[in-house]
Amino acid sequence: MDYKAAGVDIDAGMEVVERVKRLASSTFTDGVLSDIGAFGGLFRPELSGMDDPVLVASADGVGTKLAVAFAAGVHTTVGVDLVNHCVNDILVQGARPVFFLDYLATGRLSPDVSAAVIEGIAAGCRQNGCALLGGETAEMPGFYADGRYDLAGFVVGLVDRARIIDGRSIVPGDVLVGLPSSGLHTNGYSLARRILFDELGLRVDSVVEALDCTVGEELLRTHRSYQSAVRPVIETGCVKAIAHVTGGGLTDNVPRVLPEGCAAVIDPQRWTVPPIFDFLRERGEVPVEDMYRTFNMGVGLVVICGRDDAHRVLSKLIVCGEIGAALIGAVAEAGAGRSRVAYAKVDLPGDTQAACGA
Amino acid sequence: MDYKAAGVDIDAGMEVVERVKRLASSTFTDGVLSDIGAFGGLFRPELSGMDDPVLVASADGVGTKLAVAFAAGVHTTVGVDLVNHCVNDILVQGARPVFFLDYLATGRLSPDVSAAVIEGIAAGCRQNGCALLGGETAEMPGFYADGRYDLAGFVVGLVDRARIIDGRSIVPGDVLVGLPSSGLHTNGYSLARRILFDELGLRVDSVVEALDCTVGEELLRTHRSYQSAVRPVIETGCVKAIAHVTGGGLTDNVPRVLPEGCAAVIDPQRWTVPPIFDFLRERGEVPVEDMYRTFNMGVGLVVICGRDDAHRVLSKLIVCGEIGAALIGAVAEAGAGRSRVAYAKVDLPGDTQAACGA
Repeated sequence: MDYKAAGVDIDAGMEVVERVKRLASSTFTDGVLSDIGAFGGLFRPELSGMDDPVLVASADGVGTKLAVAFAAGVHTTVGVDLVNHCVNDILVQGARPVFFLDYLATGRLSPDVSAAVIEGIAAGCRQNGCALLGGETAEMPGFYADGRYDLAGFVVGLVDRARIIDGRSIVPGDVLVGLPSSGLHTNGYSLARRILFDELGLRVDSVVEALDCTVGEELLRTHRSYQSAVRPVIETGCVKAIAHVTGGGLTDNVPRVLPEGCAAVIDPQRWTVPPIFDFLRERGEVPVEDMYRTFNMGVGLVVICGRDDAHRVLSKLIVCGEIGAALIGAVAEAGAGRSRVAYAKVDLPGDTQAACGA
Repeated sequence: MDYKAAGVDIDAGMEVVERVKRLASSTFTDGVLSDIGAFGGLFRPELSGMDDPVLVASADGVGTKLAVAFAAGVHTTVGVDLVNHCVNDILVQGARPVFFLDYLATGRLSPDVSAAVIEGIAAGCRQNGCALLGGETAEMPGFYADGRYDLAGFVVGLVDRARIIDGRSIVPGDVLVGLPSSGLHTNGYSLARRILFDELGLRVDSVVEALDCTVGEELLRTHRSYQSAVRPVIETGCVKAIAHVTGGGLTDNVPRVLPEGCAAVIDPQRWTVPPIFDFLRERGEVPVEDMYRTFNMGVGLVVICGRDDAHRVLSKLIVCGEIGAALIGAVAEAGAGRSRVAYAKVDLPGDTQAACGA
């Protein structure tokens, strides 16, 4: 009896480590002092020009979107989802990511699948300018069925304390700018899978006319990173708060950045809900309120700014390529006991110009 | 059809978040600027007195030790294992931990089990003086059987660049000081479970005379944190390298800190191997070389220092409560093609005094 007989292949693990090393080094930025393989990863942050550096960290997973990757046999995109999800979670507080670590847990380690997953993580890190500083690849026999794995990520970023974005200055009358999502991103997959696969009997390779692609293609669209588009807008100094629309949808995530006494009124007429969400609502007979608390409904990120800055923020976003950005709502007084997000018609600046490019 | 019907209970998730908030706040140190619930956790590092601050980060899991926790229905210790494992991984480079994040993935979320796990994580964070800054609790229906979960942790620490411990100054003749482990720590569980449960048909509540406790008690002993004992030794400036004995045992982990051209000769006669390892070797008929590449064999951490500093390091460790610390080997010239760790008799300083307190 040895370790391999017990289902753990240290040599396969070593092979993965070697491949991870090569992939990780493609992400290394100036701050990286160590090579993968050291017990801990070493990173020297660039603090010059910062008065009071603050670290911002976030941990996330990909959730059951992984099940779609398994069914499609596509393992290179979930890593991109993971990194972008984490990067957005610290971007909303004004931080720029500096390094990332991953946790990949499998039943029996397939060096090829593991390498494909890390490939996606490395690509996501390069796109966001953060270094893949380390991680853990765990082989856990009996915990995961063959070919299955779970994936978690951890990002650390930096922001100068005076430039932390926290929504503190939000007042009624401020406006919400919505940035388009690329699809479900990484939320609502348990419900989407239940509807598409269990209820409708579709498969990942089924072509759905309303979606103009296969179910697999639609569900595996990668979670967008908003960093390149939003960073220049943050530089304008107009941004009061940013909400990343993840689990809980607009309904649960927008209130996370609203100060006491404030609520948000969001007008769903202000943007075009992508077909996948209508398809899921209609075919799954999902109540609209559940849709908005489960899916992003086409809005992946919400930027909140003063009414007078709306045009400046919006034009900056559009210049940065966010042509789908639109004014989607406004901040109102929170009524006692009432929900902090209401969906209703709302008057917004520039109404004459067709919802500002939406 | 709604999200709950699809197996995801957002309200149960919210309850967990509330309980996590209370537990996390018990770990908060001065640097914490944010409350759990923000998209990212904010931490202001204390950099005064550091010339060139370097961040050290590590990601880890608990592996299949979790299966023992499931069988025993004990969920409060794996979090301690997780934190201590991560803290040791950055301690070996000289870093002190500042914050920690966790990833807890379950099938169907049990607020009580989740809270018990986070309780252990919070306890581990308090013991190591690092803040539980955030984390992700994911409910993934169909991914994990009821009552099962996976757990990963991420730690970030700080060290001044000039004080990074990296083994660069190691030369043949240097000595290895071993610090006792508390048991299997978090490695080798797939093999141990295979032998104890599958081969020998034992259960977690089976009392094993040779161990003088139940199998569950033996296997759930928490992974030790070496921080409090090793930090004062690091302050002496005598420490050239530290190896955390994790997956791969002494055989794979000691070479990770040895410079080119150096090998280690370890003398197993120098410390008392705890009964669990002999029991696993004998009853599982595991070849000795596999034992040393799978389990820590009673040595959880190895400190490498100059021969002339051996007494100083050892006495400092013993003063700090590490009465089981012992000289266990020496650094030698690496022979071409030969293994970088050999197990053989080796002459060490103070041989007259019975292996210095071992």
